[in-house]
Amino acid sequence: MDATIPGGNPVVPTRTGTTSTTTGTRVGPGPAGWSVGVDVGGTKVLAALLAADGAVAGTHRIPTVRGPDGLVAAVRTCVRALAADHGLPLDALSGVGVGVPGVVDPATGSVEHAVNVGVEHPFRMADAIAAALGDGVPVRVENDLNAAVLGAAHTVDAVPTPRDLAFLALGTGVAAGLLLDGTLRRGARRAAGEVGHLTLVPDGLPCACGQRGCVEQYASGRALQAAWPSPDGRPAPLVLFADAAAGDARAMAVRDRFAWAVAGAVRILVLTCDVDRVVLGGGVSGVGEPLLEAVRAELARETAASPFLASLRLAERVHLAPRDVPVGAVGAALVGRGEVV
Amino acid sequence: MDATIPGGNPVVPTRTGTTSTTTGTRVGPGPAGWSVGVDVGGTKVLAALLAADGAVAGTHRIPTVRGPDGLVAAVRTCVRALAADHGLPLDALSGVGVGVPGVVDPATGSVEHAVNVGVEHPFRMADAIAAALGDGVPVRVENDLNAAVLGAAHTVDAVPTPRDLAFLALGTGVAAGLLLDGTLRRGARRAAGEVGHLTLVPDGLPCACGQRGCVEQYASGRALQAAWPSPDGRPAPLVLFADAAAGDARAMAVRDRFAWAVAGAVRILVLTCDVDRVVLGGGVSGVGEPLLEAVRAELARETAASPFLASLRLAERVHLAPRDVPVGAVGAALVGRGEVV
Repeated sequence: MDATIPGGNPVVPTRTGTTSTTTGTRVGPGPAGWSVGVDVGGTKVLAALLAADGAVAGTHRIPTVRGPDGLVAAVRTCVRALAADHGLPLDALSGVGVGVPGVVDPATGSVEHAVNVGVEHPFRMADAIAAALGDGVPVRVENDLNAAVLGAAHTVDAVPTPRDLAFLALGTGVAAGLLLDGTLRRGARRAAGEVGHLTLVPDGLPCACGQRGCVEQYASGRALQAAWPSPDGRPAPLVLFADAAAGDARAMAVRDRFAWAVAGAVRILVLTCDVDRVVLGGGVSGVGEPLLEAVRAELARETAASPFLASLRLAERVHLAPRDVPVGAVGAALVGRGEVV
Repeated sequence: MDATIPGGNPVVPTRTGTTSTTTGTRVGPGPAGWSVGVDVGGTKVLAALLAADGAVAGTHRIPTVRGPDGLVAAVRTCVRALAADHGLPLDALSGVGVGVPGVVDPATGSVEHAVNVGVEHPFRMADAIAAALGDGVPVRVENDLNAAVLGAAHTVDAVPTPRDLAFLALGTGVAAGLLLDGTLRRGARRAAGEVGHLTLVPDGLPCACGQRGCVEQYASGRALQAAWPSPDGRPAPLVLFADAAAGDARAMAVRDRFAWAVAGAVRILVLTCDVDRVVLGGGVSGVGEPLLEAVRAELARETAASPFLASLRLAERVHLAPRDVPVGAVGAALVGRGEVV
């Protein structure tokens, strides 16, 4: 079974401040036109230029400057840099899409509760970016996980797939984007996919949300870092999985506990929504194959005792986000060119 | 706040073998034509005749005879009885819909894994019923909870509602039907809404599914009956809630534990899918207001400690299925007249 979503040729590695012009990664069919997608995160802003045929033509990455003004300036910088690198006037772009970790109203382009990037109160981000760019470029804004799940789905080769998946982000926190039968599930109050704040351990570890024992306290990058701090600046997940692979019994126990928590989130997503696939993304997914193997092993262990779970084929449904495609930025570019209602 | 979904005039009370001709319960807009919906359960088969304007014109109820032949005969009996009572020839029906507790392929009308009604292996139920009825009446089959969530949604007056809800059946087991922004969410493997088999209590009570601590072991009618057996043949949920209301401390503890488990299922549905409403149905919902109050009180308790949960307004989202409308049969009738893709 493939570790990553099948398909997709290598794209340019994403390096800070670097752009490139490789082509070849198909991200599914779409309307003609170049577009730029910008994935706004708590530490970095990562942009991708998408060609009409769905190939990633280049990427650009800069540090996040928190707050409305800083974010608008960062998006403008990225868009201008990518356009200039490829000799494209801004008005040649069919659109710019921005993925933001907050509550987004895609109809108005307004963002709020984006605490990690310094936007708490409602801010008309799409309008502000459009004004900053000028040249009449359409700007659309979407929740970052919604953009990511679109990017993950489009990274699959354009075979007739169901486009039915969850993008489970294992980052500082834990949350999912849902694409159900080709349609984004944003939710009645734009809270769909908040599985990180479901209870995994009754009366367990306290969570910043005010509850105890939330999935996020066991399945996030932060939880992993707390359980197995990095001694040398390498990412904690890499250290943990390396130590476990080397036979450290304590590391193996921490790894297995982490995999159990991620498997719990997978079960929640599948038994509630019955998504065809769950794609593991976020910082922890940088571990790659060993993470996937650990989660699949845990799901297989649970399945062995339950014919019901076995019939759901949970382990087969779990995949890694492609490591060589910036799915958040690609998804934002798809939003930017108007592929999402 | 209303206890039941707002709207809906009283319909005929459902009594065994009784039909009636009251009108007045609007179940939302739909194409013209009479239709019959049949809700096939483990103990009873309940049918409703739906008029073109969405009113329930009559109901018919007979005991379940398990197995393919028995079920086909039961559906035929119900349809013929309702049509005869209202002087309708069968070919005047725009369709017959059947809700079955199993894995249903609505495209082919095939049913399998309907263990409670004696259909395990794939059975082309729609074809068999159409042949038994004759007269060219279209027959459509759907999973019973999918039919129920449609019935619950249509029972709301025809105001512009989002039609975004979960029907959470608290019966022998626990499972949900999902209507997301007007579309049934059946799932990639027709397993959406299986929240009864998510873990509520790690290493908790053993479940027939092979897991331990499933929601179903704490939030179902069967669980309630085990915790508080009825001394006199009255339904156990009614006895428990009456004893708790009378101040029995043990009954109050059992009731609150039950409400905690139901609240857990509500949280799973809202934080994963963000459904606008969760409608409590199934046998336990016969308790009525006291059940709703207990679940809302538990949700309010949890919310008090968590601004995040508070922002989701969980308690407001929970409603009781209307007691005077057979939502499963009404939903099946909507399926029968082709309102569902």
